[in-house]
Amino acid sequence: MKLEDLNRELAAKNLGGFWSGNITGFDQNVEPKSAAVPCLWKWSDIYDGLIKARELVNMEMSERRTIRLVNPGLPEKLFATSTVHVSVQLVRPGEIAKAHRHTLTAVRFVVQGRGAFTTVEGERFTMSPGDLILTPNWTWHDHYNGSEEDIVWLDGHDGPLVKALEVVAVEMFSRKQQPVEAIPDFSIYQYGMARPYEKKAKLFDAPYKYPWEQTYKSLKALAVTEGDPYDGILLRYVNPRTGGPTLRTFGCEIQMIRPGEKTKFHRHTSSTIYHAFRGSGCTTVGELRLEWTQGDCFTVPLWQWHRHENPSKEEVVLFSITDRPMKEGLGFYFEEGKPE
Amino acid sequence: MKLEDLNRELAAKNLGGFWSGNITGFDQNVEPKSAAVPCLWKWSDIYDGLIKARELVNMEMSERRTIRLVNPGLPEKLFATSTVHVSVQLVRPGEIAKAHRHTLTAVRFVVQGRGAFTTVEGERFTMSPGDLILTPNWTWHDHYNGSEEDIVWLDGHDGPLVKALEVVAVEMFSRKQQPVEAIPDFSIYQYGMARPYEKKAKLFDAPYKYPWEQTYKSLKALAVTEGDPYDGILLRYVNPRTGGPTLRTFGCEIQMIRPGEKTKFHRHTSSTIYHAFRGSGCTTVGELRLEWTQGDCFTVPLWQWHRHENPSKEEVVLFSITDRPMKEGLGFYFEEGKPE
Amino acid sequence: MKLEDLNRELAAKNLGGFWSGNITGFDQNVEPKSAAVPCLWKWSDIYDGLIKARELVNMEMSERRTIRLVNPGLPEKLFATSTVHVSVQLVRPGEIAKAHRHTLTAVRFVVQGRGAFTTVEGERFTMSPGDLILTPNWTWHDHYNGSEEDIVWLDGHDGPLVKALEVVAVEMFSRKQQPVEAIPDFSIYQYGMARPYEKKAKLFDAPYKYPWEQTYKSLKALAVTEGDPYDGILLRYVNPRTGGPTLRTFGCEIQMIRPGEKTKFHRHTSSTIYHAFRGSGCTTVGELRLEWTQGDCFTVPLWQWHRHENPSKEEVVLFSITDRPMKEGLGFYFEEGKPE
Amino acid sequence: MKLEDLNRELAAKNLGGFWSGNITGFDQNVEPKSAAVPCLWKWSDIYDGLIKARELVNMEMSERRTIRLVNPGLPEKLFATSTVHVSVQLVRPGEIAKAHRHTLTAVRFVVQGRGAFTTVEGERFTMSPGDLILTPNWTWHDHYNGSEEDIVWLDGHDGPLVKALEVVAVEMFSRKQQPVEAIPDFSIYQYGMARPYEKKAKLFDAPYKYPWEQTYKSLKALAVTEGDPYDGILLRYVNPRTGGPTLRTFGCEIQMIRPGEKTKFHRHTSSTIYHAFRGSGCTTVGELRLEWTQGDCFTVPLWQWHRHENPSKEEVVLFSITDRPMKEGLGFYFEEGKPE
Repeated sequence: MKLEDLNRELAAKNLGGFWSGNITGFDQNVEPKSAAVPCLWKWSDIYDGLIKARELVNMEMSERRTIRLVNPGLPEKLFATSTVHVSVQLVRPGEIAKAHRHTLTAVRFVVQGRGAFTTVEGERFTMSPGDLILTPNWTWHDHYNGSEEDIVWLDGHDGPLVKALEVVAVEMFSRKQQPVEAIPDFSIYQYGMARPYEKKAKLFDAPYKYPWEQTYKSLKALAVTEGDPYDGILLRYVNPRTGGPTLRTFGCEIQMIRPGEKTKFHRHTSSTIYHAFRGSGCTTVGELRLEWTQGDCFTVPLWQWHRHENPSKEEVVLFSITDRPMKEGLGFYFEEGKPE
Repeated sequence: MKLEDLNRELAAKNLGGFWSGNITGFDQNVEPKSAAVPCLWKWSDIYDGLIKARELVNMEMSERRTIRLVNPGLPEKLFATSTVHVSVQLVRPGEIAKAHRHTLTAVRFVVQGRGAFTTVEGERFTMSPGDLILTPNWTWHDHYNGSEEDIVWLDGHDGPLVKALEVVAVEMFSRKQQPVEAIPDFSIYQYGMARPYEKKAKLFDAPYKYPWEQTYKSLKALAVTEGDPYDGILLRYVNPRTGGPTLRTFGCEIQMIRPGEKTKFHRHTSSTIYHAFRGSGCTTVGELRLEWTQGDCFTVPLWQWHRHENPSKEEVVLFSITDRPMKEGLGFYFEEGKPE
Repeated sequence: MKLEDLNRELAAKNLGGFWSGNITGFDQNVEPKSAAVPCLWKWSDIYDGLIKARELVNMEMSERRTIRLVNPGLPEKLFATSTVHVSVQLVRPGEIAKAHRHTLTAVRFVVQGRGAFTTVEGERFTMSPGDLILTPNWTWHDHYNGSEEDIVWLDGHDGPLVKALEVVAVEMFSRKQQPVEAIPDFSIYQYGMARPYEKKAKLFDAPYKYPWEQTYKSLKALAVTEGDPYDGILLRYVNPRTGGPTLRTFGCEIQMIRPGEKTKFHRHTSSTIYHAFRGSGCTTVGELRLEWTQGDCFTVPLWQWHRHENPSKEEVVLFSITDRPMKEGLGFYFEEGKPE
Repeated sequence: MKLEDLNRELAAKNLGGFWSGNITGFDQNVEPKSAAVPCLWKWSDIYDGLIKARELVNMEMSERRTIRLVNPGLPEKLFATSTVHVSVQLVRPGEIAKAHRHTLTAVRFVVQGRGAFTTVEGERFTMSPGDLILTPNWTWHDHYNGSEEDIVWLDGHDGPLVKALEVVAVEMFSRKQQPVEAIPDFSIYQYGMARPYEKKAKLFDAPYKYPWEQTYKSLKALAVTEGDPYDGILLRYVNPRTGGPTLRTFGCEIQMIRPGEKTKFHRHTSSTIYHAFRGSGCTTVGELRLEWTQGDCFTVPLWQWHRHENPSKEEVVLFSITDRPMKEGLGFYFEEGKPE
């Protein structure tokens, strides 16, 4: 009998041999590599698209008037990286995005407009630029723009991961909007540093809002410290209940690159999607230079050497979403600085 | 401007609209669904393949003389489910499987033969039928069959998950085998119920062996209890350091289905691969009946109603590997019993 | 031989029999009981004492110009309860309380004055009425009143517990004051909801300040909720790193009793010392009514039925210190509501 | 006004000044110190007492025929140290020690006899020399000697701590003995390394038995390792649910001092009571040499330099009880090796 015969025989029985001919390179060193490629999405393109969609798309045609960031390296042209995704949403005055829930966890980072609401598990969160709002896995949520101006936000979620893990579930709420509980932004008090005892067993990841005012105050205060050699003044949004990562599947971070600052190269097994919330600068990923201005989004796939640079005289603030918490939770997070 | 024009325009800029035309079914209820299908692999097929490969394949042609269980539902014909994988390995007397490490976590469940060794992080584990041995993520490991008979074991690992998360890393050891520390099966004492303080920071998941003798003793002792309505007498192998799940990415379980026992239907968002270690019976998955005899392997993909049945007069023991710990850790584990 | 002879014989050898004659009541139901008694300390008495001590006591005569609350039920007339203690401290303009550290954990709750500093582990905390500042176990600390007015604060600590556990340790700093790091109130940013990664292993309990402004905002916002049947609007100060209890040995709480509110009776195995920070009211402890006005302190010993009442038209704010975290941590916390 | 007048005035109002005259030594370095003294209790004395009490004391005169180890340094002549206590109990054939529960946590370490039972929360534990059985806080327990020989065991508990914390509670069971569940030593299977999922919320500290056979096997296996410089081959009994300390208030340990072994000096803020289960040797505590032979008990109070020595040709096995888990849990555990 020849090996090819055995291979054929096994294949016919839903079996497969793990040997040469069937596999290659089994005894060589291998390093992590993402199909996603470093990519820059210009705000001018995104916003132009949103403004056109503002007229062409209504709430009957879409659950969400949203434009996805598509990574050209991924086989399915759907997501920004292999595990986390960002799109940009515009809600017109008076529009309601219908209530539902899903096993995807989402966050909203407000870019423009104020006065709209996101309601999560009956709790109404007000939205202003720089605010970050958590919509954990399987929490009911709907949006309503009761203001007189458009609102635009980034939607970040773990859709690519949830899809890869085959646990996508969606449920529509019985009505268009949820009934709303008494206190807007209740979680800010529920999870303040002086907080009520939790009466009932709560969700591990709670709905929550991080107001921009607080976030920016911290960035400014810490700007006098040395900061991180690879990331400048880097803050991670923590789970207010536990002090741990923002969420179990991904985390949100915000960082200031100070005028003239140029960080060192490092790499890690998490992938990150950035949004230039304030200012302009440049991120080098491997051989590639991504030059970004305010509003632009870009991604650094896992295990690629990268550094950030702010050659300007204005401070840069980058908001980002990273799959680091999931990678750490499962034991897959490694990082290293580049030897000089 | 028409919507199709906008769609084209966006696509050219690596952007994509989330609206009808581009997406479908956005406002409907969706349930988890795996591409993997319920599948039965006969031991007679597997073992026949191993015996043929015994002659056709040597250690230069393969790092491992292993036959994979291939799920015909998955696009890549490589793995048993979308997140965990099982293959069956035969090592001949005198053979060495070379030392290396990788970000995959593996377990070995011994089916036949005794007297071979697996060495993990310098610790030598003896192998006998029914023993389960853990080779966590990034621990050096090699195998050596110093006995005079073939040894056959199941290799379970999280390769499909590690691949989906794009964190595959492999490193070859500088020599064929690791140097070996003094005490065989050291971890059994290191993590006994009376145990030394851990001096240095240890791996979160430690190398470990669960001897069959202990496992079976527990199954027998607990056989007089009512057990689980869906799984009979079900034991999960715990992380000996913490009492938590076997590993972070997957767990191992062993269960006895008593003579005449027929469990109730339930479903959950974890997928499981089973091996009939002792006895014969039948598992119903949806409309499908999988009739298995000793040695057979089969899989129940996530969110499918299933039950086990032992119509025989002999006890059945099923060993299984499930991605439940990863699903629970990330917040994706749901289960429900079928209403009668 | 008679039993008395045996008793004598044993006693001579540092042994003792556990039988009648030597012990009593071994087979009866027993309930927790504190030697401490419910007690009220009038602010007018405390403050009058401080004003007199202001002139009579200088920093050479005392490390701290402090007046202790003494529970007359305790055998040693030193502490307010058996496990936690409160005293009241006055620091005159220009005075320095010398730097040292000890195994006691202390907190300061500011009652009057602003502009002084507490420095903990090199971090300078500004002090204003209602602020709470943590000085965990074995952290260097010193105080300096650089303002032009007296400052008065409550010192709470676990001295009685540390003494009972025989682990009192004190170390004087090499200088009068610690060198001070760059940013005042640094921990507010270090442990904000968006916060830097912790670079080095930090103290489990971190130095921290809870600004009154935030605390009061939460009390007001939550005042519209139902609140706790036994405690009105009750907030616990949490460990900012973990969301757990303020400290491991004791916790701090603040509560609003709304105008006209009268809570229900309950009891628990923790003891509490209260300070009426705002308003006047009454606490019933067993048969005793403690009528308190602003500034007064009082204590409710463990396992005594108690309720709070605010018969006034002004809101009441009670600050309190409880040994509940220690009791919970060791498995000794029980509570029950009084059947009506 | 003079300071003495103020002191008197304050005392009359249950207040006390913290200044010279009232306190001393407030600005000096202080180190932990126990009132308990190093102490040796000879087994010959203990056993002689038990044999006499066997005749003089019956179950109507005592809940327990027990002889306490009394530390002469403690003000109340009741306990072996300030936080943990040991006594020695003898139960005659046919005797029943009545069912009750209390907030004290107890352990039994069997010294002599086999065939008796301890029942904890309805679970029956068989008893043989070297077995350790846990009776956590507030679990029902009773003992019955159904064998034909006396049984003798050490009772360890946290009575001194529970008393100091004023949370002593005792409840008598409605009958003399608890009804017994099906499987003896059930917890060994419930918390084996392959174990059932826990269906209902369980006690944090579970009833459990550590069989001597397993413990001794680990000691022997590890005897070839270097061991601990201060304690030889030291094992701590872990909480089988979590891998953490035996219990929250105290821990049990067992150690082998090998023939000819002499450990180094160290000290720590936990106190320990030892029992020489096998062999003879010597422990130096400060200037004192405690020479012990098999069966003797002795104590090393906190923060005293100590070392162990086995000058004999036989192996020594010391069983011990330490308050280290409580001290660690509250942040009070410190240790240091003595500079040579």
